[in-house]
Amino acid sequence: MQCRRALCKRWLHLSGRKSMASSAHLHISSMLSKPQLRKRQFHWTTGYRSRDVEFTHVRYNVQRLGFAAVTTEDIAFFNGLLPGSVVTDPDILEASNVDWLRTMRGRSQLLLRPRTTEEVSQILRYCNSRNLAVNPQGGNTGLVGGSVPVFDEIIISTVQMDNIINFNSTTGVLTCEAGCILENLNNYLEEQDFIMPLDLGSKGSCHIGGNVSTNAGGLRLLRYGSLRGTVLGLEVVLADGAILNCLSSLRKDNTGYDLKQLFIGAEGTLGIITAVSILCPRKSPAVNVALLGCDSFEKILDIFKESKSMLGEILSAFEFLDYSCREVVCEHLKLRNPLQETPFYILIETSGSNDDHDQEKLSHFLEKVMTSGLVADGTVATEENKIKALWALRERITEALVHDGFVYKYDISLPLERFHEIVIDMRNRLGVRAKRVVGYGHLGDGNLHLNIVSPAFDQQLLDSIEPYLYEWIAQHCGSISAEHGLGFKKKNCIYFSKSRAAVHMMQQMKAILDPKGILNPYKTLPAFTQ
Amino acid sequence: MQCRRALCKRWLHLSGRKSMASSAHLHISSMLSKPQLRKRQFHWTTGYRSRDVEFTHVRYNVQRLGFAAVTTEDIAFFNGLLPGSVVTDPDILEASNVDWLRTMRGRSQLLLRPRTTEEVSQILRYCNSRNLAVNPQGGNTGLVGGSVPVFDEIIISTVQMDNIINFNSTTGVLTCEAGCILENLNNYLEEQDFIMPLDLGSKGSCHIGGNVSTNAGGLRLLRYGSLRGTVLGLEVVLADGAILNCLSSLRKDNTGYDLKQLFIGAEGTLGIITAVSILCPRKSPAVNVALLGCDSFEKILDIFKESKSMLGEILSAFEFLDYSCREVVCEHLKLRNPLQETPFYILIETSGSNDDHDQEKLSHFLEKVMTSGLVADGTVATEENKIKALWALRERITEALVHDGFVYKYDISLPLERFHEIVIDMRNRLGVRAKRVVGYGHLGDGNLHLNIVSPAFDQQLLDSIEPYLYEWIAQHCGSISAEHGLGFKKKNCIYFSKSRAAVHMMQQMKAILDPKGILNPYKTLPAFTQ
Repeated sequence: MQCRRALCKRWLHLSGRKSMASSAHLHISSMLSKPQLRKRQFHWTTGYRSRDVEFTHVRYNVQRLGFAAVTTEDIAFFNGLLPGSVVTDPDILEASNVDWLRTMRGRSQLLLRPRTTEEVSQILRYCNSRNLAVNPQGGNTGLVGGSVPVFDEIIISTVQMDNIINFNSTTGVLTCEAGCILENLNNYLEEQDFIMPLDLGSKGSCHIGGNVSTNAGGLRLLRYGSLRGTVLGLEVVLADGAILNCLSSLRKDNTGYDLKQLFIGAEGTLGIITAVSILCPRKSPAVNVALLGCDSFEKILDIFKESKSMLGEILSAFEFLDYSCREVVCEHLKLRNPLQETPFYILIETSGSNDDHDQEKLSHFLEKVMTSGLVADGTVATEENKIKALWALRERITEALVHDGFVYKYDISLPLERFHEIVIDMRNRLGVRAKRVVGYGHLGDGNLHLNIVSPAFDQQLLDSIEPYLYEWIAQHCGSISAEHGLGFKKKNCIYFSKSRAAVHMMQQMKAILDPKGILNPYKTLPAFTQ
Repeated sequence: MQCRRALCKRWLHLSGRKSMASSAHLHISSMLSKPQLRKRQFHWTTGYRSRDVEFTHVRYNVQRLGFAAVTTEDIAFFNGLLPGSVVTDPDILEASNVDWLRTMRGRSQLLLRPRTTEEVSQILRYCNSRNLAVNPQGGNTGLVGGSVPVFDEIIISTVQMDNIINFNSTTGVLTCEAGCILENLNNYLEEQDFIMPLDLGSKGSCHIGGNVSTNAGGLRLLRYGSLRGTVLGLEVVLADGAILNCLSSLRKDNTGYDLKQLFIGAEGTLGIITAVSILCPRKSPAVNVALLGCDSFEKILDIFKESKSMLGEILSAFEFLDYSCREVVCEHLKLRNPLQETPFYILIETSGSNDDHDQEKLSHFLEKVMTSGLVADGTVATEENKIKALWALRERITEALVHDGFVYKYDISLPLERFHEIVIDMRNRLGVRAKRVVGYGHLGDGNLHLNIVSPAFDQQLLDSIEPYLYEWIAQHCGSISAEHGLGFKKKNCIYFSKSRAAVHMMQQMKAILDPKGILNPYKTLPAFTQ
């Protein structure tokens, strides 16, 4: 128990740095085309401070497991197998050894970039026979240290597996290789009036294989549901090199256990996803956004219920931010919030097939919530630039907080009635020791981003936050990781959200599918101790 | 291979009888309240021909596995554990030994009706230690023999576990015990302006635990997606009696592998589901139905694309029937099809939050598909009785076929472009030997019901259908069971839809979770042979 707590504390200390890297990266991604982006990423990761990051095994005092070390014979084998796709140049490797947040650093000396599933299969067959550990890597945009090696694991990147295999515009089913970048897929689909069922801040870099491996949530989950429902098929290479072909594009198939579900959210610890089949919705021609100010959190829940009733099938986002979020974006980013000052704000987005209908529904809804006193003030945007301006008040909170001080960041799920209680509780608990305690997030999904700011890192403040916060979440049946996964950093916190019996069963699955433990070791699950 | 084919043939012969039983039962269910229904079911199953059904182990020549036999000491133990809930009366047991279709009959001498999860746990702990096999049973409405014993397995019924634990009208999350009848849940939700995300013909009898165990599809899948996305949590009792609590009501939780997915669709072979948490959508106040006649199947696919574009978020059903279906319901049930004679018909349903908007969208859509020549004739219903009359033309096909002769029934998934090809192929192949070959189903989900009629059972005709049909499905990457599962009858056909590697992995999962194989033996997976 002591060990677990220590690790959690450590993680939070580090996670405070993540916003800067993350927002910088996103900023770059949004401006550059794919070739530019790759070049820039390379430059960024090799040229800027990566070597200053402490080695993960040193920082976290991790013991290396008994895997074999890569030999010159191994490298010769891979050069024969993947001519031109074997990287041993330390400068290039640095980019893949360090995570986005620059909080983790492995010391892998070998990066492989296979082009086909068969190559991935041969790599794993060889590694399994040689007892060489591997680290699957997509866009390396993970936030919990799942995508970079801890020691000298061989990095297997999906970067060269970026072909679209098929898109059926009748069914909306897209089949593609795991290394396709999410934004590229979405752009491809938009040309045919479809969209991907998920959208993330890191869409300019993240790979669809990584999205599926981490069961990514994001902005469209409220409307289109989770990847557990929209992913129809997967192709996976198992630890021993066997190719498991579950790449169905059928919506219904009840023949035996649904094996692909095991690999969704397993963070590459059970197999390497090499191809994905996914159900894509039509693009909505009509989009409207409303920003509303409210006096109490109870009223927000009433508005949420009303929106589900009156906006029903066109509701596509229900985002929450409290007054402290308004303050921080106004203060540091000079954004203007057009509404009067209220304790809470919500941003509602509708997407539908008929703009007149949607505006009429939205108008009736707004009339009702304003005349009934649920909303104190509100504004609606129907033009693209105004929609963007309203979204900025929600989307740029993370960036603004970076300018505010040292940020302790948490991404949690809670029952809706408890959603904001923890923010108030934390404010009362920390008092003036915290410069700011803010709450925002995907209220429609029960996903709260709780961020606490102090002028500089403060161990005593952290001790007041944890493990108190995790225990509070566990007590109220929440999740300590809503969408980021466990990776390296949170694997020992799993017991705050899952029972020992459940974790034991997960460990059994791991033992069956990867008996030597070569796939992404040191991640997702605590060490198997019985 | 010989063995597998023989089993498949056998099953089809039997499945021809299913419609009568099924439709009779549904008719009863729809008229009676829950207490009446239970009484009637009891009467039906004990009083009518159940004893005429041949024992499964005789009919299919199954060898009993080496489980212990129930002793008087065992019965004494269960009487102590579950006073008043232990059934040994042969007349009552008969109802649980025979399936809905009266095609399978076990010879269990012990039926247990636990009231709590703890009781289920104690039952399984005892059975596992004694090596006694068990047969979990919900509403006993399965169509592939998964819900009744093959030999003397102890039947564990969820019938007394029918409490609603919680419903949150803000989030729409319902949590209930596994024995709740689907229709009762839906009625409960409708009072609060919500609905269940699934709807089935057997809703008057089937249990939600059984629905989840068989990953039931049904009429609402097109709109609300599969149970893999809507089921948020499960409570499961494992073979050794351990209670696995994954009864989360959170929409997002990425802490480790998603274990509950293993039990969705596992047909009770990995654990017994005792409670379910499920995300329920709002009830749509506006419903409209259109019936359209078309000249070609290609035009139907164009209409489907157009409907997804123009009806988008309000499209809730896209059902298909061919001309032979029109003939059979008109001939045997005297239903009137208001449209002119065309080779194909489609039934489109919209559900939304604003009737004016929905009617306008539907009207624009119909104008487009009619003026562009995609539709030859069409009619729209907005009143409830007219909507029901149009739905009857689709929903009563199964019933009409029963009056037509011996029916060979198949429930398959196919890529949409192949959806009707197999119907034509089968007509050409069988020629005049088949009285009728009809195709209908959930086109929006790629789920085809292929039914072939002959005046009486004809082994030669069956030999012309199988294994040809299954091979055709496999060749075109379809599924031999879209939504009914594998159960006892189709377990050996799994290789037509899944690879040997995949089935092997499923068998490994089974071996971990139920090492003695006591949970629903002889079902879902072929015997583990290595």
